[in-house]
Amino acid sequence: MSKFWSPEVRELTPYVPGEQPRQRLVKLNTNENPYPPAPGVERALREFPAAHLRRYPDPESWALREALAREHGVDVDQVFVGNGSDEVLALAFQAFFRQSRPLLMPAISYSFYPVYCRLYDISYRTLALDDHWQVPLDALSADSGGVVFANPNAPTGHGHPRSAIARLLEQVSERVVLVDEAYVDFGGESAVPLIDIHPNLLVVGTFSKSRSLAGLRLGYAFGSRELIEGLERVKDSFNSYPIDSLASAAGIAALADRGHFEACRERVIATRERTRRRLDELGFEVLPSQTNFLLARHHDLDAGELFGGLRERGILVRHFNSEALRDFLRISIGTDDEMDSLIEALEAICR
Amino acid sequence: MSKFWSPEVRELTPYVPGEQPRQRLVKLNTNENPYPPAPGVERALREFPAAHLRRYPDPESWALREALAREHGVDVDQVFVGNGSDEVLALAFQAFFRQSRPLLMPAISYSFYPVYCRLYDISYRTLALDDHWQVPLDALSADSGGVVFANPNAPTGHGHPRSAIARLLEQVSERVVLVDEAYVDFGGESAVPLIDIHPNLLVVGTFSKSRSLAGLRLGYAFGSRELIEGLERVKDSFNSYPIDSLASAAGIAALADRGHFEACRERVIATRERTRRRLDELGFEVLPSQTNFLLARHHDLDAGELFGGLRERGILVRHFNSEALRDFLRISIGTDDEMDSLIEALEAICR
Repeated sequence: MSKFWSPEVRELTPYVPGEQPRQRLVKLNTNENPYPPAPGVERALREFPAAHLRRYPDPESWALREALAREHGVDVDQVFVGNGSDEVLALAFQAFFRQSRPLLMPAISYSFYPVYCRLYDISYRTLALDDHWQVPLDALSADSGGVVFANPNAPTGHGHPRSAIARLLEQVSERVVLVDEAYVDFGGESAVPLIDIHPNLLVVGTFSKSRSLAGLRLGYAFGSRELIEGLERVKDSFNSYPIDSLASAAGIAALADRGHFEACRERVIATRERTRRRLDELGFEVLPSQTNFLLARHHDLDAGELFGGLRERGILVRHFNSEALRDFLRISIGTDDEMDSLIEALEAICR
Repeated sequence: MSKFWSPEVRELTPYVPGEQPRQRLVKLNTNENPYPPAPGVERALREFPAAHLRRYPDPESWALREALAREHGVDVDQVFVGNGSDEVLALAFQAFFRQSRPLLMPAISYSFYPVYCRLYDISYRTLALDDHWQVPLDALSADSGGVVFANPNAPTGHGHPRSAIARLLEQVSERVVLVDEAYVDFGGESAVPLIDIHPNLLVVGTFSKSRSLAGLRLGYAFGSRELIEGLERVKDSFNSYPIDSLASAAGIAALADRGHFEACRERVIATRERTRRRLDELGFEVLPSQTNFLLARHHDLDAGELFGGLRERGILVRHFNSEALRDFLRISIGTDDEMDSLIEALEAICR
């Protein structure tokens, strides 16, 4: 605490990201992609003229937005980009959710959402997941100042089909519905085609997972022109140039390689299903997943002890210190070799 | 306007950055460095393993903060970094200036300051510059919720010596004094050595100007541990990983080359003084500058017409559309060749 801080800052409880260990570990704790980005990314870095860095980037990030628009079949003015999808989410909370009525969100979802609410003084209400650990879409249509959820949801892994999102949007038309699709490329169904019909739908995505570019900080949003303009107003009151020139060039190169993208996500999905079966055999209940992670709890063993045992064996997974999730481990999908190490370590611990 | 926007967003008047032209112009409008970054930056980009980009960066940006701490003779926990100094400023306004009393700032300074105030609902009061177009340090010691100014100031170019900042800090000890040193390396005197004595002093800097890395978005702040901790609380409630891995590597490489840094800033200073003399001869009043730009007004000719005439001749400078500055042009210092083109064009226009 400091007398120099703004009063609100004294009340903040910041988001806690997964550990970034400095020693070598099998790192299955922050849902990173086990495969490198498209080879074109490396070429883009090698060929980028360092002398150009003396210049500011394009404040509108036009080239990157064009590439995203092309890839997703939307117009450039339906695309917003930011310094990672966390920044995009933060700006969206400011732009749309500071309303008189509370924001609605699932009680279990990306834990940054309530942090943004506290930062921007947004009141919110959480709704319990249903009996199958799924986001309760019907309940999210209640009266509110807006709706936010991840689809597929994190850290539970389940995704609703586009038709279910469309039904929610038919009930909710007067406030913004933000669908966070960070994990959609691993088996979910994107709501992006709905933005032409529903001017209140904002779909947020990231290069960090399926494009293997977590290190570069690139996120984006798709929505109607009026939502994108709202985001731009906040962005231009915060940071004129959030996307650096190199990240933009690398992002464009990543989008250009559809083959690499498809191959990597298919490998992740295959490894995920293989890992799920082996965890089943080891006595875990594993929630169905359309993401690059699994949420699993052991029928007999304590999750905290499993987490500690894995860490001793050089394997880092995520254990959330919350009432609802304390029985679970969230395990990112690595390479087949990494998952073999995980299973071997779990076998040793379970024995 | 959109019914979906938060009410405050409807009132925002975003900052307008200098134009980033897509055609080839002599670009003297956004105070970029005319020289490329240190050769080590290019090497860092060539050698960076693209495969590492699949991993999130260090959320604490420890290596970059260590390099900044070493260069400036402070401790790592007295250093904060952000995605450009605009982001650092925005987070600082949130962290320190949401107080019951208004923030004080000069009436003419970086025009982003009032934009942040509107974004974060901070009341503020502006104080006129003195008769020599200098920041009125004495007046800034009045009762307030905080103080912010650029030193050297933009777009006027004058910088106060460290001893004058120290006198202000002796009068203002109960609220944060933010000194924005974006331009300090072109002849100003840094206040950084005062952070050990004054726990309420925050000094903000950037790699965009003297390090020729505007394209990479790297900014920083130096201050007491309690101020840095306040910034970290807001940052960790906004974006866990604002600094990407490549930008961090490039920034560290830039800091490592003191010879390149000194040579570039000396060339900019020499070209500035040479340009000032030639503008004098052409009938301009040119304010003294400790920055990489000149603020100048012609004794007879209209600034808007000069701006238009220069643009027709392929030369872009900045003309601010405000009451106080409408007689002036702000001219960034380019290479000697670029400044020769400027002078030739002005000679043609003045004739």
